[in-house]
Amino acid sequence: MSMPPLFCARPSSETVKSVIAALLERFGNRAATGEAIRAQHGHTRSYLETQSPDLVVWPETTEEVAEIVTLCAKHVMPVIPFGTGTSLEGHVNAPVGGVCVDMSRMNQIHAIHTEDLDCVVGPGVTRKLLNETLRDQGLFFPIDPGADASIGGMVSTRASGTNAVRYGTMKDNVLALTVVMPDGRIVKTGTRARKSSAGYDLTRLFIGSEGTLGIITEITLKLYGIPEAISGGICSFPSVKAACDAVIMTIQSGIPVARIELADQVQVKCFNLYSKLGLPEMPLLFLEFHGSEAGVKEQAERFGDIVEEFGGGPFEWTVKPEERTKLWQARHDAYWASFTLRPGAQSVSTDVCVPISRLAECVEATQKDLEETGIPAPIVGHVGDGNFHLGLLFFPDDADEMAKVKPFLQRLVKRALAMEGTCTGEHGVGQQKIGYMSLEHSDAALDIMRGIKRQIDPKGIMNPYKILPEA
Amino acid sequence: MSMPPLFCARPSSETVKSVIAALLERFGNRAATGEAIRAQHGHTRSYLETQSPDLVVWPETTEEVAEIVTLCAKHVMPVIPFGTGTSLEGHVNAPVGGVCVDMSRMNQIHAIHTEDLDCVVGPGVTRKLLNETLRDQGLFFPIDPGADASIGGMVSTRASGTNAVRYGTMKDNVLALTVVMPDGRIVKTGTRARKSSAGYDLTRLFIGSEGTLGIITEITLKLYGIPEAISGGICSFPSVKAACDAVIMTIQSGIPVARIELADQVQVKCFNLYSKLGLPEMPLLFLEFHGSEAGVKEQAERFGDIVEEFGGGPFEWTVKPEERTKLWQARHDAYWASFTLRPGAQSVSTDVCVPISRLAECVEATQKDLEETGIPAPIVGHVGDGNFHLGLLFFPDDADEMAKVKPFLQRLVKRALAMEGTCTGEHGVGQQKIGYMSLEHSDAALDIMRGIKRQIDPKGIMNPYKILPEA
Repeated sequence: MSMPPLFCARPSSETVKSVIAALLERFGNRAATGEAIRAQHGHTRSYLETQSPDLVVWPETTEEVAEIVTLCAKHVMPVIPFGTGTSLEGHVNAPVGGVCVDMSRMNQIHAIHTEDLDCVVGPGVTRKLLNETLRDQGLFFPIDPGADASIGGMVSTRASGTNAVRYGTMKDNVLALTVVMPDGRIVKTGTRARKSSAGYDLTRLFIGSEGTLGIITEITLKLYGIPEAISGGICSFPSVKAACDAVIMTIQSGIPVARIELADQVQVKCFNLYSKLGLPEMPLLFLEFHGSEAGVKEQAERFGDIVEEFGGGPFEWTVKPEERTKLWQARHDAYWASFTLRPGAQSVSTDVCVPISRLAECVEATQKDLEETGIPAPIVGHVGDGNFHLGLLFFPDDADEMAKVKPFLQRLVKRALAMEGTCTGEHGVGQQKIGYMSLEHSDAALDIMRGIKRQIDPKGIMNPYKILPEA
Repeated sequence: MSMPPLFCARPSSETVKSVIAALLERFGNRAATGEAIRAQHGHTRSYLETQSPDLVVWPETTEEVAEIVTLCAKHVMPVIPFGTGTSLEGHVNAPVGGVCVDMSRMNQIHAIHTEDLDCVVGPGVTRKLLNETLRDQGLFFPIDPGADASIGGMVSTRASGTNAVRYGTMKDNVLALTVVMPDGRIVKTGTRARKSSAGYDLTRLFIGSEGTLGIITEITLKLYGIPEAISGGICSFPSVKAACDAVIMTIQSGIPVARIELADQVQVKCFNLYSKLGLPEMPLLFLEFHGSEAGVKEQAERFGDIVEEFGGGPFEWTVKPEERTKLWQARHDAYWASFTLRPGAQSVSTDVCVPISRLAECVEATQKDLEETGIPAPIVGHVGDGNFHLGLLFFPDDADEMAKVKPFLQRLVKRALAMEGTCTGEHGVGQQKIGYMSLEHSDAALDIMRGIKRQIDPKGIMNPYKILPEA
């Protein structure tokens, strides 16, 4: 017995016309079919070609989202949720057209519960907006992917960033979700309780589901008090291995490091060119410690001792915000800085993640592979998690080079998987990594995922052709 | 169109006979049908009556589990996984008979990766065995439900305990699982990477699924370095409200408290009777801080200052292990101590969880309700999570009293839900809380859970009649 396809087909032009007409009538100037707007919503920061939806609509409430999805379900029209479009893996492309649901107007912060350290927000709230609002109350939300992503998008891709070693990823920081299901029903997945054992963990099922199981319309997040004091600094090492060993020792020693980021010698060169830092061109760690004044001093000093053991250093640290900010600005500009190596090139950013004991080996083997491939790629890593990015800088018009990119990326993924790692630590799968899913997961595991998709979205309308390879 | 039932029916006596014969032949003295053994495996620490399985089998490998499940699937025979039988909610009862799969022989610690702070264990490893093994390597696993539960059982119920405020629950401390699916297929849900965005979070789907979606046969856990120093102590408060306010302030201040436990005045009386502590009969907090020597001193001192603000204290603390152990032994004996109030009574332990801002109100309203009901129940709470237990001490032979128990429990759950809480913070649903599921979750949410159950276990053989109410 052959299964029906996992995802819906491109709807007929009549269907498209009738859904567009209905949505334009219902949403007026909160719906648009202009070519530029559609193209902007069907393009991600990847080298995939733009695949435009048929219409973009801007709902303002959960009920409006339910109305849109109900209409699309009736007509078997694809539905693609859109946050800020900063995804790196082709999450918002519309390969068979459909309705793009832009969540940017659902950017209200509904409640901040300071005593409970939680808040309830719309999916269109961006992480920077959230933190600006929280600052006055002495609170912050730690998850920081590079871009100013929307919270809804961060939930959908199971995002993390530089703080994950201390504060976890999105999976660890969401208490509950409101989701519009593919049939238009509205579901609340949890409560504001900090923990629960009441049935299957629907919250975690939707985190990382990339819009393929429903549209997230409200999010309850955990918050944290802004630390009383922060210390931070940088430290050079003779090798990636020495830097990684220092990190392992730091974490084993129970030093509660908040951020610990690696840049390889190539990336340090880019920092020097872009941010005028004048650093030695050696592997570098960026560190940050959160705690009491005495605590962050002690943590920094203990880290300094560890650094020496591994031939690194000196560890120069400070509690002065302006100096720390300058360093972290450089770190956050890593993507832009990388282009100094190859102006005009395109960059594809990868994010494999391996057990930390294998990280140095994985990075060094990758550096060697890069040299042999002849395409430059600076490396930065959330080294406390074993997660690293490389930004492969290539010229898409150079056929020779293009022929090398995909095989290189596949070697990188296979290398990480062979080390008991994952093809994606934080970007998600989107379109771009579908091919890796069967390298990472067994047929049986993929069958469970497909079964869940079929069960929840039998018509296959939700963000089709993402995450899951067809059987 | 009416759906088939969620769970399988009691198999015919011929089916039972043939499955028993096959398993006895295959497993020899690792299978048993003796009445006492069966009864022991169909009984949980609850006031539910014992419901025995037809046979108990002790597999030693994942492949043997797969063999058992494949056989049961073929014959539509219920399968009930069993850890240590310490569940409190009726998780291992066999209401329609079936095969109990006792995991106690799968108690190997397969690997400890000190650099990666993880380990791979069989589901039958108990938490105490694990920690004894880890101690020599300077590592520990923090999750500590009261009983010496098996890791497999703790995964299955999404367990937590006194350390959750600092280290999270089982949901936060599992990297990957190996699961035998209801059709006998073996699935690995993740890798040893600390984080991943590669598809649906199957690991979290199985955590808390109470054996209803498959049998967990291998678990990769996060570990932690044993803290360099630990300080701890106790502190009395004039009211539950004052104690809770001190806790809120402590957490808001970012003091990384490792354990913060509340005992109400009734429970303190029990401690005095049972453990001869001579404490004032007032609400009491137990505290523990983990960190560097200077750090745990600073944390304890800062907490002492907060205590004074709320009229509590003095906060007596120590870094001496023997004194701390004595206090925590008393805390861990809370269950046994409670019987001093009513020797010979039966105890039912509840575990609602509410946002911490509502905790004092919830506890005080519950104390009042208890007084009016006339059944004594000491209260202890994992107050940093808003989670509290009360041990209702009643005589099951007293019809009058029995008539009061269920309505009281339901009022407690409704009170917690009205405060945006959950009916179970850490015990799970089992049989005993099925009735609360439709109070806590909407029909739509329960439909998703049922859909997942049907999709993964279409014959309904896995631990039937647990968690999910029939539609």
